[in-house]
This record gives sequence, C-alpha cells and structure tokens, in this order.
Amino acid sequence: MMRIDINCDMGESFGAYHLGNDLEILDYVTSINVACGFHAGDPMIMARTVRQAIEKNVKIGAHPGYPDLQGFGRRNMDFSPEEIYNMIIYQVGALQAFVGIEKGKLHHVKPHGALYNQSANDREKAGAVIDAMFDLNPDYILYCLSGSLMAQMAKEKGLTVYEEAFSDRNYNEDGTLVTRSQKQALIESEEGMLQHVRGIISSNEVMTIQKKLIKINAQTLCIHGDGPHALHFARRISELNKI
Amino acid sequence: MMRIDINCDMGESFGAYHLGNDLEILDYVTSINVACGFHAGDPMIMARTVRQAIEKNVKIGAHPGYPDLQGFGRRNMDFSPEEIYNMIIYQVGALQAFVGIEKGKLHHVKPHGALYNQSANDREKAGAVIDAMFDLNPDYILYCLSGSLMAQMAKEKGLTVYEEAFSDRNYNEDGTLVTRSQKQALIESEEGMLQHVRGIISSNEVMTIQKKLIKINAQTLCIHGDGPHALHFARRISELNKI
Amino acid sequence: MMRIDINCDMGESFGAYHLGNDLEILDYVTSINVACGFHAGDPMIMARTVRQAIEKNVKIGAHPGYPDLQGFGRRNMDFSPEEIYNMIIYQVGALQAFVGIEKGKLHHVKPHGALYNQSANDREKAGAVIDAMFDLNPDYILYCLSGSLMAQMAKEKGLTVYEEAFSDRNYNEDGTLVTRSQKQALIESEEGMLQHVRGIISSNEVMTIQKKLIKINAQTLCIHGDGPHALHFARRISELNKI
Amino acid sequence: MMRIDINCDMGESFGAYHLGNDLEILDYVTSINVACGFHAGDPMIMARTVRQAIEKNVKIGAHPGYPDLQGFGRRNMDFSPEEIYNMIIYQVGALQAFVGIEKGKLHHVKPHGALYNQSANDREKAGAVIDAMFDLNPDYILYCLSGSLMAQMAKEKGLTVYEEAFSDRNYNEDGTLVTRSQKQALIESEEGMLQHVRGIISSNEVMTIQKKLIKINAQTLCIHGDGPHALHFARRISELNKI
Repeated sequence: MMRIDINCDMGESFGAYHLGNDLEILDYVTSINVACGFHAGDPMIMARTVRQAIEKNVKIGAHPGYPDLQGFGRRNMDFSPEEIYNMIIYQVGALQAFVGIEKGKLHHVKPHGALYNQSANDREKAGAVIDAMFDLNPDYILYCLSGSLMAQMAKEKGLTVYEEAFSDRNYNEDGTLVTRSQKQALIESEEGMLQHVRGIISSNEVMTIQKKLIKINAQTLCIHGDGPHALHFARRISELNKI
Repeated sequence: MMRIDINCDMGESFGAYHLGNDLEILDYVTSINVACGFHAGDPMIMARTVRQAIEKNVKIGAHPGYPDLQGFGRRNMDFSPEEIYNMIIYQVGALQAFVGIEKGKLHHVKPHGALYNQSANDREKAGAVIDAMFDLNPDYILYCLSGSLMAQMAKEKGLTVYEEAFSDRNYNEDGTLVTRSQKQALIESEEGMLQHVRGIISSNEVMTIQKKLIKINAQTLCIHGDGPHALHFARRISELNKI
Repeated sequence: MMRIDINCDMGESFGAYHLGNDLEILDYVTSINVACGFHAGDPMIMARTVRQAIEKNVKIGAHPGYPDLQGFGRRNMDFSPEEIYNMIIYQVGALQAFVGIEKGKLHHVKPHGALYNQSANDREKAGAVIDAMFDLNPDYILYCLSGSLMAQMAKEKGLTVYEEAFSDRNYNEDGTLVTRSQKQALIESEEGMLQHVRGIISSNEVMTIQKKLIKINAQTLCIHGDGPHALHFARRISELNKI
Repeated sequence: MMRIDINCDMGESFGAYHLGNDLEILDYVTSINVACGFHAGDPMIMARTVRQAIEKNVKIGAHPGYPDLQGFGRRNMDFSPEEIYNMIIYQVGALQAFVGIEKGKLHHVKPHGALYNQSANDREKAGAVIDAMFDLNPDYILYCLSGSLMAQMAKEKGLTVYEEAFSDRNYNEDGTLVTRSQKQALIESEEGMLQHVRGIISSNEVMTIQKKLIKINAQTLCIHGDGPHALHFARRISELNKI
C-alpha cells in the first residue's frame, strides 16, 4: 500500500535520442505521464511506454505539451485558448489510442512544462485544458499545481483533481514554487529531499525557504526520472511511501 | 441517393498555409479523408474540418501519412512495419478524439500519398496498416487501391474494404494507374474526365490508355479538392452520381 | 529612380504550400526579405527566390524568424539572447550561401514577425540581433521599426539602418503602430493607403488615428505580397514612388 | 604527427537531447563532421561545437543530412538531385556562418547517413552533392566512401577527395561495407578493431569477412563518438595513429 500517488514523466525520448530511465523508474512509481509527440516522444516510444506501464500495473496519464521539440516544451509560447484546447484533444487522443489497443484505460492528464506553468493560474488557459479533458472524458483526473487556480476551476467543473507537490523543489511562504531562475529552486541533497518528501506524505507540510512550515494539499508527488541519482532517489522515496 | 461513395482529401491546410476548397467541396462528396498532422493538417484545422463535415452530414475518415510536411507525405520513405503500425495508431487516434468530442463516428481510414502507394502492394506495409486499423476498431472501413494486394489482405483479415477508383487518373491495361511521371497520368479535359467517371459508376469499366475497356471494382471514387476547376468538376461528378 | 526603398516579404511558401505572388511583386519593389526556413521557406524556395530577385535586379535581404512554422513565426516565444543570436547566424548563413552561388550579395537583414516585434524595443533581444548581423558582416543593413530602440542601438553599433514604415498600417500619436488586435490596425481602402504612402514618401509624415500629423523617419516602406489586392496596390505604390 | 586523418561525427545533440562525448572526443581526432540541423544539431549546438573545435585546433567539416530528425537522417528518402543540391547549400551555408564568425575556415563536407549511402554510388545524387560543394567553394574537400563512384566523380570535377574507411565496420571482398542488417556488420571486440585500424593505417589493407586481405584506399578514418567505449577506443586509435 502507498500513502500517496507518486508520478513521473516518461516516454520523453525521441527517435535516436534517449532520455530517462523509464523501465527502471516504473518499479518505484504508481503513475506516469506519457509525452505525446509535441515536446517529446514519438509513436514508437509511446507504444513501448504504454505497454511497459500496463505490464507493471502503473497508471497511465497523458502529458501533452507545446509543439516545441527543440525547447522541450519548456519555453513560454503564445497560444489562444482554442489552440490549447485543440492541442490537448490531439495529443490525449493519440495516447488514448495506444492505451486502447493494449486494453488499458487512461487515468489522468498532466500538462507539461510551459503549458503546466502557464495554465496553472491563467483563467483562459486553465479553462481550455479543463474543457478539453472534460469533453474527452469527464472521468479523467487532472494533475496540476497544488493550490492553483486551475485546481479550483477543475473541481468546479466536476473533474477529479490530484493536486501535485514536487519531491525536489523548494517552496515560497505563499505556497508557490521557487522559480528555476533562483538558486534555491532545487533541493539538491538527498537528506533534504527525503525530509521534504516525508513532510508532504505524513503531515501535508513543507518547510519554505523562509524557514516557515506551511500546509500543502497534495494527492500526488512528482519525482524525476533523469539525472545521475534519479533511480536511487526514486527507490528511497518509494520506500518512504510504503505504509 | 448516390450510386457510389465520392471521397475527397480534406483538412490539408497547415497553420497560415491554406490548401483546397474544403467547405465548398463538402457539398459534392459523401465522405472525406482528413489529414492528421503528419503530412498536412494541424489540430485547429482537424477540429474545424470534423465539425464542418458533421454539420453537412458527410462521412469522416482518417488520412494518415508519413511525417514529412515539406514533402506533403508524397515522398517515399523507409519505415519498418512497426513504425507504420504505430504512426497509424497515433494519427487515427488523434482524429478519433476530434470526431468523438463532436459526437461523431469515424467511418474509414485511407492511407495518404506515399503510404497509400507503398502499402498497396507490399505485404509487410499493407499488413501494418491493416493490423493497426483492426486493433483500433475492426469496424473501420479501409479505402485503398482497387485490385491491390492490400484490398485482398484486408478482406481476409475481416475488414470492410472500399476499393478506390480515381476520377482524373488514367489506367493501364493491367488495371494499375499510369504513374505520375508519365505524360498521360492525368485526365485533363472535362469531357474525358466525365466519360471516365461515367464508366466507373455505371458499368465498372475504364478505358485504358491502350484503348481497351477493362473492368474495375470500385466502391468509392476519389475526386480532388484543389486546382482551379476542382469545384466545377466536383459538382459535375456529383450530378452524374445521383440516381 | 525611386524616392524610397520599397520592401516586401518573399519566399514564404513551404513545400506544397504556396503563399504570395512573388514573381509578379518583384516588378514593383526595390528590395525583398527572404524567409530562411524557420517560420516559412525551404531550400528549394530560397534558391528560386534568390535567383528571380537577382534576375530582376532587386536587392536581397534575409528574413529570419522564430522556428515555428505552424505559427508562421508570428507567435511570441521565449528565447534567450544567445538563442536569438545563433538563430540569426544560422538562418542568415543559409541564405548567404544561396546568394553566394548566384554571385549576388546580401543587402540587409529584417527580423520577421514576433522576432521583429519582440526585438524592436527590448534591449537584450535587439542586441542579440544586432551583434549577430555585425559579426556576420558589418556592412549588412538592418531593416527595423522606425523610431525603435533597436534602430538607435544598431546605429550606435555602427550598422547602417533603414527605419521602416508600413504602407497599410495605422499609427498612434506616439509613432507606434496600432496593434493588430485593434480595429483600426489596418488601412483598408485603396485611397487611404495611397494617401498614407504619399505622406511617408514626400514629407515623412503620417496622419495618426487621433487625426494628428506626426513625423516618421523612414528609409524603407513595407508592402505586402499576399491578399487579393496585393499586386494592384504594389503597382500603385510603385508608381507613386517614381521620381 | 598523424599518419591518417581521423574524423568523427559531432554536434549531434538537439535541444534537451544529449548525444555523444563531443568535448572529450575532440582530443583524439583531427577533423570533425558537424551536424547542420536537419537530421541532428541546432544553432546553439552548432555554435558550441564550432567554438570548441577551433579552440582544440581540429578541422571542421559540414555533415549535412536528410531533414528527418526522428529518423536521425538514417532513413532512405526520395529526393530529386535539385532538392539534394539545395539542402546541401542550405546546411553547409548555415555552418559556414558559424565557422566564419569564429574566424575559422570550413575544411570539408561529409554527407550523413542515408544521404552518404544513397549518394555513394548513384550518379545523380552524387552529382548533386558534388555540384553544391563545388559551387559553394571548390576548395572544400569531400569525405566519402572509399572506392565509390562519388569519389571518382568528385575527382573528375576537380574536388579534393578524402576516401573514407571505418574503424569499426567489416568489409566484403569487393570492398563494400557489410550492411548493418547483417550480423557481422560491426567489429565489436577491441582487439579486432585495433587490428583492423592498424591494417588501414600502415598498409592500406583490410581483412574481409571472407578472410581475404584486400587493398583499401583511405585518406581518412571514421571513428564513433557515442557508445559506452567510444572514448577508450578513440584514445587507442589515436595512439596507433601517431608516428
């Protein structure tokens, strides 16, 4: 039994380019977010990722992003709500098909990178993502930033929401993430990271960089699958998470 | 009432690039093949094309192609059967989602361009397309070259097949199309084209460039939506087709 | 003899997608801005465009843009100055080669779309474009928004600058363009447009939407090559421009 | 002093995707082939690769390929000679600019992957590559398959040619490479590879898989920069090559 859902981005390779430790990480997570070919991933990789997740009984989510492979979907881009709506339909639709041919079921949608950030607290962009999910299947669960406007809007629409906390990101006093441009954005030590995760899992609390304990509402915890210590950290977090 | 299904490729614009007379052509066809974003089309255009087709009560098919926007999917490329299988799943999956949110139903799949030609008589490539369609939904109808190996293989698999004839292409004595590199590939005069279509519709016959009448088995007739006379030709053919 | 340089974006087709009336417009302009494959254009089209411009003795400039074919380079995207610098080197370098094999000489660089707008008054982005041009060839002329920070920075760097006015855009009292989201952004009537152009050419003046005459410093005038009346307007403006 | 030129493909990363050990490999080679953004590489990576090569005094060549990032340029595609000519102009032109701003000089051109293979013995494709190089700069050296029609045609045209042998590929009795689809395509043991290289360097000979010694004419030897042992092998070969 697990205390909290642990999710990881996956299927982020592309053609000859390899990224992440997908197969190994699957042993330590309860759900994955599969890149859908716009910011990363291609049909071959999507097929393989879905198959492996189903074999290992891990829940599958779509991880749609901006059409910017060179920027890995992390670059802010201007899209209208209608464009965002349609790029969600397209990408989630494509992944649905891979899940369907393996007799699986899509569990959730988690926007990627700049789309995740730009839609978290923008009413129009959040609305576009939420509407697309709702129109595709109102049972899909939205994974989004804990405490965001998007989380609140999705609940009002009737979607189930997993608010998300990050295993390796520092928080500000107001509950927002320390932006990546700041030095303290990432928790880099193993002990720091484990203590941070323990707080999230057992008491819904994180210690901010201002050294104040704040509450954080999280039904899912994001870990990372790349980087030199990814597998080791994933295993440690997975152990912490067992009841 | 129509004697034969008339299909046309559609949704082939891309971003700022406009191609075809989609909205007008919809009045003269009974089914369309919608580009799925690899050789043409994008999420905005797919959404609009599907919506318009449903409004005009025209049957919608997927028109998956090679990932080669610059070559419009007409360039031969080497893909393994597994790559072809997965690119069909991806593209048809994406289109299915657009059809689904409009409460429509996908009717058929017609491979595009080089994929159409390369899979028509290649056992491995044809098998990849057929398997993907079957796994997605065994009720999908395959539109493919009349008399091809692919048509035969799909029927053996249990798919419904609409064998396809072309309204503006000349045929060889053995039932194959005169290749585009040859001068006589296209029927260019209006009268020639109408006579050719009349033969296909009323007696399943075409006059080859060797001036011999041959039988052609066709449940669907392909017309083209671009070119200066496309709308005029479409209307003439549509009139011929009424019972 | 011409009073002012008249420029037009060109080579904006892509693969099977056709845009603009390039060959005809060449008769009415003194310089062109050639798309370099990122937001539009491909190697075949660049080769043809350069060849035709040299035959017609029209000056050739590079028209580098953001790597966003689907958005036609008109969508704001976040790039670092270093990324902008390198995308200019790449795109202008590619065009230089086509000009070189035809024994021509590149005359200028005009950033395209969102890059044009985002760099006009942003010190870092403008600096990146200017540095790239300077490093490629300090003799290249920069075409940029009249009155912009970029124009001033480029002159300080030692580049020759052609400040640009637009034949079909309305201006605000402070000399900025009326943004495209506003109703009055475009001058739509032929007479309005000709009067506007006459003001620019003969007295360096434009009438703003606030009905006030303001001075505008322009060494080049931008006309458009697409749209139903593009050729007609181009001919009228070209006639006005003859001494 | 080195007995033979040792070349390695480089700059094959893309955006967030990392490939190869570029910086380390530079210590063991005398020339590199830089990907130009079509099958791999992007402007940021090209800039960095060129800068590092110039710092380490390694000769720089362009490595143009087919526009197929997903297939890494290894997939056969149908292009006309004119399309190949123009894609060479474009890609080499872009790289020239990066070399130029660093006050360097482009040394050679080596076609990549499927373009390398498809043009080696095809008169039209080889001619297109050769003409493009000649028109860009007749001093550029062509790196191509030893014993190929392309090598012969380039010499007739007046280009300097470095015929190329491979450090880790087995040869057939007729001097062609064992194709990658065959089991024996690659030399996998370290000793086998070093013996093979020693033969090429000291006596222009390779032992074929039919166990016959044949002559091979090579002015450059290709090593690979990726794979788990790439750095170790590169150092061993580099040592062998010192006089």
